[in-house]
Amino acid sequence: MSTPAPFVQPSDKSNIRANRLTTIFSHLRTRPKIVITRYLGPEASALVTHKHSYEVVQWPEDRSCERDWIIKNVPGASALVVTVVDKIDAEVLDAAGDSLRVVSTMSVGYEHLDVHAIASRGIKIGYTPEVLTDAVADIAVMLALMAGRNVRETMQIVDQGRWPDFSWAPFLFCGPQLGSSPVSPKRIAGFIGFGRISQATLARLIPFGVTGCLYTGNPQSEPNIDRDEALRQKLGLETLRRVDLDELARESDTIFVLAPGGPSTYHIVDETFLRKMKKTSILVNAARGSLVDSDALAKALREKWIWGAGIDVVEGEPNVAHDHPLVKEPRCVVIPHIGSATTETRVGMATLAIENAIATLTNQPMPKELRL
Amino acid sequence: MSTPAPFVQPSDKSNIRANRLTTIFSHLRTRPKIVITRYLGPEASALVTHKHSYEVVQWPEDRSCERDWIIKNVPGASALVVTVVDKIDAEVLDAAGDSLRVVSTMSVGYEHLDVHAIASRGIKIGYTPEVLTDAVADIAVMLALMAGRNVRETMQIVDQGRWPDFSWAPFLFCGPQLGSSPVSPKRIAGFIGFGRISQATLARLIPFGVTGCLYTGNPQSEPNIDRDEALRQKLGLETLRRVDLDELARESDTIFVLAPGGPSTYHIVDETFLRKMKKTSILVNAARGSLVDSDALAKALREKWIWGAGIDVVEGEPNVAHDHPLVKEPRCVVIPHIGSATTETRVGMATLAIENAIATLTNQPMPKELRL
Repeated sequence: MSTPAPFVQPSDKSNIRANRLTTIFSHLRTRPKIVITRYLGPEASALVTHKHSYEVVQWPEDRSCERDWIIKNVPGASALVVTVVDKIDAEVLDAAGDSLRVVSTMSVGYEHLDVHAIASRGIKIGYTPEVLTDAVADIAVMLALMAGRNVRETMQIVDQGRWPDFSWAPFLFCGPQLGSSPVSPKRIAGFIGFGRISQATLARLIPFGVTGCLYTGNPQSEPNIDRDEALRQKLGLETLRRVDLDELARESDTIFVLAPGGPSTYHIVDETFLRKMKKTSILVNAARGSLVDSDALAKALREKWIWGAGIDVVEGEPNVAHDHPLVKEPRCVVIPHIGSATTETRVGMATLAIENAIATLTNQPMPKELRL
Repeated sequence: MSTPAPFVQPSDKSNIRANRLTTIFSHLRTRPKIVITRYLGPEASALVTHKHSYEVVQWPEDRSCERDWIIKNVPGASALVVTVVDKIDAEVLDAAGDSLRVVSTMSVGYEHLDVHAIASRGIKIGYTPEVLTDAVADIAVMLALMAGRNVRETMQIVDQGRWPDFSWAPFLFCGPQLGSSPVSPKRIAGFIGFGRISQATLARLIPFGVTGCLYTGNPQSEPNIDRDEALRQKLGLETLRRVDLDELARESDTIFVLAPGGPSTYHIVDETFLRKMKKTSILVNAARGSLVDSDALAKALREKWIWGAGIDVVEGEPNVAHDHPLVKEPRCVVIPHIGSATTETRVGMATLAIENAIATLTNQPMPKELRL
């Protein structure tokens, strides 16, 4: 799946053959052109190649697409399928011209798209929400467990051959338990943001013995008390409530950051927030790096305001050096933004990105259209 | 909790004072003596000190108890409370003499006790099962997620400052998803052993999207089809069946080793078993190292017969060097037997160990008596 197998390379033999076929079969001359900035795997490829209705032009290399390649190949395209590394702005849209009907991104985020420039030209936008909910919720639970159970420190002990130096002791390597126990009968999961991924994470936590849920919502939205009570009953929780950040920090045993990025959530987890958290609590960020102040979190871990942290995203990623303040903290598990990185999820995202493009070209409703 | 605070040290001033008090208050002379081989935390200590009914003699240092200390202090003891590192055999029992009524271990395993020598003298045995079920089931799920999502490799990339070398790609860092998805609608969890910890692990896996369960049982026990069907329905699984090792290996996506150690399960996961497993499957061992042939597992990972492994226990632990075949495999997560290492669980185990001893001394039924 990792080997690129481009359908049509702009200057190779198959393209020359395709051009000859276009000359022979004149109806093929009107095939809509789909420009794809990356090989998206055999499943997604099959969707466009099996139809024989499109001229598919795809970046042929196994690395990020070059902007120049897009500018050169996008003229006359009806659909442009991109990934998070491709910046799609007015320059690209100008190069594409009037033929472009849809920009489809294989991602749930769309910070890389100038959505207003796209929409103002009447071009539709496809994206891939929901598909990655399960994969990200899995990572959120994994990070909570790893941070609570001191896994970075203990793995390092094994990796360095120091296990023989540690003989069993009643409280050796101990951390707080994720769920409730006779010793701690209440265990509260807190969520910053309470969308699909938060709710999928909460559902996973129930059999671990979490007894309550607190969350903060978008201040612009109204609380939904009936929904909360129905969900509380369905999950068998003692409590499920929307609260303010202050109460969330004070009362939660594990806090999951799972809200969108952007200015309104910038550094929502800062020194003030972290100082209010319990000494035995865990912070997980599987959303966007910008929500957490890295320096404040490193200080919180160093000075033991909280127990540990598990983060899949870091502000400024991927430029995270080995001496980054969070990488240096033994109680901080840092993984390189692999939240949605399961083969099944990425196949699902790639397939949906192609489906969004084809739906537009065949005048069908787009499975997942981004509406501004 | 980690600082030792001995109740009575055999040769210190408080002991001298205690001896004087014994002389003054003659009824104290008959207090039953409890010998404890390790400081077990404030909660367990409170149980014995608050009662004022016992002479408590406890190993005073923050390291494993020396055998000589036990031999010297156990004479005349009514109860002996030990941990997994204390070998209790005929020599210790001879030293204890006729007064010893109970050996209580703060552990679920009892390989360190000569149980037949103990029982043949009419001495009861206490242990601490069940208390650690949740903590170990948590670790089992964590290891399954870590192994599937390539966490050892990806953490290392971040730790070494190599994250900037990796730009986003559709299938970068991808591994198999734990639960089902439209791409893979069936996901089977397999269990070697299907006791409390396996069932607690299975319950946790349901919201992750596991759709079926296969397990192997003790060949001496009868299948329990009615129990299985009731459990299948309760958990909403498509299938839940006892199978043989061959079918378990072939059909499972994740296999959890959670059976007792000993000769009957020695190297139950060997080369033959591993060769039958799926290429995308995960092996988790959170039971005993002896169940898995380490060399065969290292070969399976190196030659990619399976996707990855997560192990909390290794044969020969803690003597596991940095160049151990499993530590050398990047697809093998190895942690140093921390399955039950949550503060809450260890407090619960320590408390139960003391309660087992006190129950015997007060002629009450022992909360958890080991019956051979």
